[in-house]
Amino acid sequence: MIEEYDLRIGLKNETTYEGQLTSKSIWGVLRGLETFIQLIHPSENGPFFQIQKTNITDYPRFTHRGLLVDTSRHFISLSNLYANLDAMSYNKLNVFHWHITDDQSFPYESKMFPLLSQKGAYDPSLVYSQQDVQNIIEYAKLRGIRVIPEFDTPGHTRSWGVAYPEILTQCFDNNKPNGKYGPMNPIKKLTYTFLKYLYKEINETFPDNYIHIGGDEVDKDCWLSNPDIQEFMAQNNIKDPEQFQTIFHEILYEIGSSLGSKLIVWEEIYAEGVNITKDVAVQVWAKSKYFDQVTEDGLNAILSSCWYLDHLSTGGDWKKYYECDPYDYVSSEKQRKFILGGEACMWSEVVDDSNLLTRIWPRASATAEKLWSSENVNSFTSAQPRLEEHTCRMKNRGIPAQPPNGAGFCV
Amino acid sequence: MIEEYDLRIGLKNETTYEGQLTSKSIWGVLRGLETFIQLIHPSENGPFFQIQKTNITDYPRFTHRGLLVDTSRHFISLSNLYANLDAMSYNKLNVFHWHITDDQSFPYESKMFPLLSQKGAYDPSLVYSQQDVQNIIEYAKLRGIRVIPEFDTPGHTRSWGVAYPEILTQCFDNNKPNGKYGPMNPIKKLTYTFLKYLYKEINETFPDNYIHIGGDEVDKDCWLSNPDIQEFMAQNNIKDPEQFQTIFHEILYEIGSSLGSKLIVWEEIYAEGVNITKDVAVQVWAKSKYFDQVTEDGLNAILSSCWYLDHLSTGGDWKKYYECDPYDYVSSEKQRKFILGGEACMWSEVVDDSNLLTRIWPRASATAEKLWSSENVNSFTSAQPRLEEHTCRMKNRGIPAQPPNGAGFCV
Repeated sequence: MIEEYDLRIGLKNETTYEGQLTSKSIWGVLRGLETFIQLIHPSENGPFFQIQKTNITDYPRFTHRGLLVDTSRHFISLSNLYANLDAMSYNKLNVFHWHITDDQSFPYESKMFPLLSQKGAYDPSLVYSQQDVQNIIEYAKLRGIRVIPEFDTPGHTRSWGVAYPEILTQCFDNNKPNGKYGPMNPIKKLTYTFLKYLYKEINETFPDNYIHIGGDEVDKDCWLSNPDIQEFMAQNNIKDPEQFQTIFHEILYEIGSSLGSKLIVWEEIYAEGVNITKDVAVQVWAKSKYFDQVTEDGLNAILSSCWYLDHLSTGGDWKKYYECDPYDYVSSEKQRKFILGGEACMWSEVVDDSNLLTRIWPRASATAEKLWSSENVNSFTSAQPRLEEHTCRMKNRGIPAQPPNGAGFCV
Repeated sequence: MIEEYDLRIGLKNETTYEGQLTSKSIWGVLRGLETFIQLIHPSENGPFFQIQKTNITDYPRFTHRGLLVDTSRHFISLSNLYANLDAMSYNKLNVFHWHITDDQSFPYESKMFPLLSQKGAYDPSLVYSQQDVQNIIEYAKLRGIRVIPEFDTPGHTRSWGVAYPEILTQCFDNNKPNGKYGPMNPIKKLTYTFLKYLYKEINETFPDNYIHIGGDEVDKDCWLSNPDIQEFMAQNNIKDPEQFQTIFHEILYEIGSSLGSKLIVWEEIYAEGVNITKDVAVQVWAKSKYFDQVTEDGLNAILSSCWYLDHLSTGGDWKKYYECDPYDYVSSEKQRKFILGGEACMWSEVVDDSNLLTRIWPRASATAEKLWSSENVNSFTSAQPRLEEHTCRMKNRGIPAQPPNGAGFCV
C-alpha cells in the first residue's frame, strides 16, 4: 500500500491560492486529502475557512497501522463499525483487524457453515450477514483501510462448538468427560476438513492477503486430559503439548499456503516454540520481549502489547500509548525491517455499542501518530494541543471522542 | 423525604391480578412505581408482559443517596443532565449534587452577577441560564430528586476571578505579585459582601435546604505569600493558615445560617481543624478515616471516598463500589445515626457529553444499591445477574449504560 503523498498549497496570484496533491497511488491521495481537511481551519474574524501556504511530503513509518475490534464478547452494530472506520481514516490507520469470533459468540454468517452463527451467535439479530461483511469491506476500502479477519483457533472457539461440538476437544476429569469443551481437536481429520472449507470461504470473502488465525491462550490441560489425545501423543512419541500444537498449526500453514493467504498468529505460537514458517507474521500482545526475539529471528512482527485499549487507568492515559515506540522493543537496527507496524486493540469484554467509540478515540490516535510519524515526533508537550484539537475535529465529524486529558471544551 | 412504600400484587380473581401501592408521601409512591416497572418482564412465550404475585415493604437505608456531576471541567448539556436524572430515578438515587463551578469555568448564569458566566464560562453557549436551572430542578423534583448546588469556595474559584479578580488572593513570589490568583481573599469585606449576595441568590434559586460550599484543596501557600495577609495574620496573632481559614468559614456559616440554609463542606474543613458548627455536614472524599472521626464527633457525614467514578481500572470495576459500605467506616454503632448517606462522584476532567452517561452507569448503580438496600444485601454473586439485567433495562429506557463486566448481550 503506497501511502506517500505530496501536498502543496501556494499562492497562484495575489488573491488566489492553488493546491496540488500528488501520489503514486490512490491510497496516498486519500491520506493527502485527509491532511488537506485537517489544514483547513476557521478564520478568526469571520465565517470563512482558511488554509496556510505549505509544502508537505508525507509517508508512514510503518505499513501496518491497525485497530483490532472484538465483536464477539459484545456485538458491535454496523453503524458503529462504520463510524469507527471513519475515525480510523481521520487518524490514517489502514488496517481494521476484525476479531470477529471468540468463545462467547460467533456473529459471522458463514455460507459454508450457516449453523455456526445460527447456533453460536448471541441472537439471530446479532449476526453479520455476508452482505454486511461486504458492506464493511467496501466502506473500509473507500477509506484506504484493509480488513484483516481473525478466526481465532484452536482456542477461543467455544461458540463454534455450539453447532459443531465434534471439532472441539472433550475435556476429562479422572478419565471421565466433564461436560466441557476445550480447544479444537487436532487429531481429528474432520477438524481440518472443516477449517479448510471455512478458511477457503474466508479467503474468498475478505480480499486482503492476510488472515489472522489466532493461536493464543490454548487450554492445553484439556488436551492432555483427553484419552484419545493421550494415546495419539504416546503413539507418535510427542512429549509436550507445544509439539502437539505444532501438528495443528503446520496443517493450518499448509491450508493458508494452498489458498495463497498470508497468516498472522498471536505471540504464543512463537513463544511456546510451536513451529512457525517464515512468511507467518507474529502479533505480540502480552510480553514485549518476544517482539525483540521474533524480529531477531527474521519473522515479521506486529506490536500490540503497549496499546491495549481495554487496559484502563485514571485520567488521560493517551500518554502511556504515546510513550510506546516499536523501535524501543528491538535491540538492533537490522531488526527494524521486520517490524510491520502495530495495532491498538479494543477487546470488548466491557465494551459494547454504548462505549466503543468513546473508549477508542482519541486514545488510539496516540497509537496512530506513533505508527505514522517519524521516530523523532515524540514530545508529549507538542502532541497534547494537537491531540486536543484533533479530538474536537473528530467530534465535529461525528465521532463521540472523549476528552484526551484535563478540562476544556470544543468550539 | 419519606420514601418508604408498600407494594402488593395479588390475585383478585382467577384471571385478574390487582396491585396496590401505598406510601405516606409522594416520594414513596415514586419509588414504588419504579419498583413496579422493574417487576414487569416479558412473558416467555408471547408478546405479552407479566408480573408475579408479590408483597413488598421497602425503604432506604440512608436518606442521602447522591450523585455528583461536575459541570465545570467540561460543560454537560441539558439533555445529558436530564437523561442522567432519569437514570438516577431508575436507581432510586435522590440527590443530584451539582458541582456547577470550579477553577476551569463558571457556567451558572447569576442574576446578581451576570459577569461571572459572561466572563468565566468557556463560551456563551456553554452556560446554564436561570431558566435551564429551573428546568433541571423541576425535572429532578418530578423524579423525587433533590438538587444540591455546590459553589465551591474559597479554593477552586479561578473562573470567578475572570470577572472579579478583586475577590481572589494575589499570589506573590519574592514579595512581588507573580501574576497568579489563588483562593478567595478572606481579609477583604468585599469578598463576604459578594458571597452574601451570591449565596442569597443561590438559596432563592435552589429550593433544597442544603448548599454545598466546598472548602477543599485550598492553596494556602498563595495566602501565605501575600503581604497583606501576612500583615493581617501578624496583627491578629493568627499562627497557621487553618486558623486563618476558620475566619472565612465562620463568616460563611453565618451567611448560611442567616439564609436558613444548611451547609455541606468537603472533608478538609474538618481534617485541617477549621472550626465547624454542628449543623454543617461533612463530605468525606479522600481519606476514609475522617468518616469515622466526623461521626464520632457527632457531625453528619456523607461518604464518597470509595465511590469516585473518575477512578478507572481495567475490567468491570463495579465490584469495588459494591464492596464499600458506610457502616464499615465507623467504629461504633452509635455513630451510624450521623451517617446521612453517600454520593458517587463523577468529576469531569476527562468526561464530557461523549462519555458522561456511559461512564456513570451502571457503575453508580452499585453505589445506589449499597445506599438503598439493607446491610445484609452484600453478595457479589447475587448482585451480578441483577446488575446485568438492570443494565439492559437502563439501555432499553434510553441510557447508554456500559456493560458491567464480562461478555454478553441485551435482548
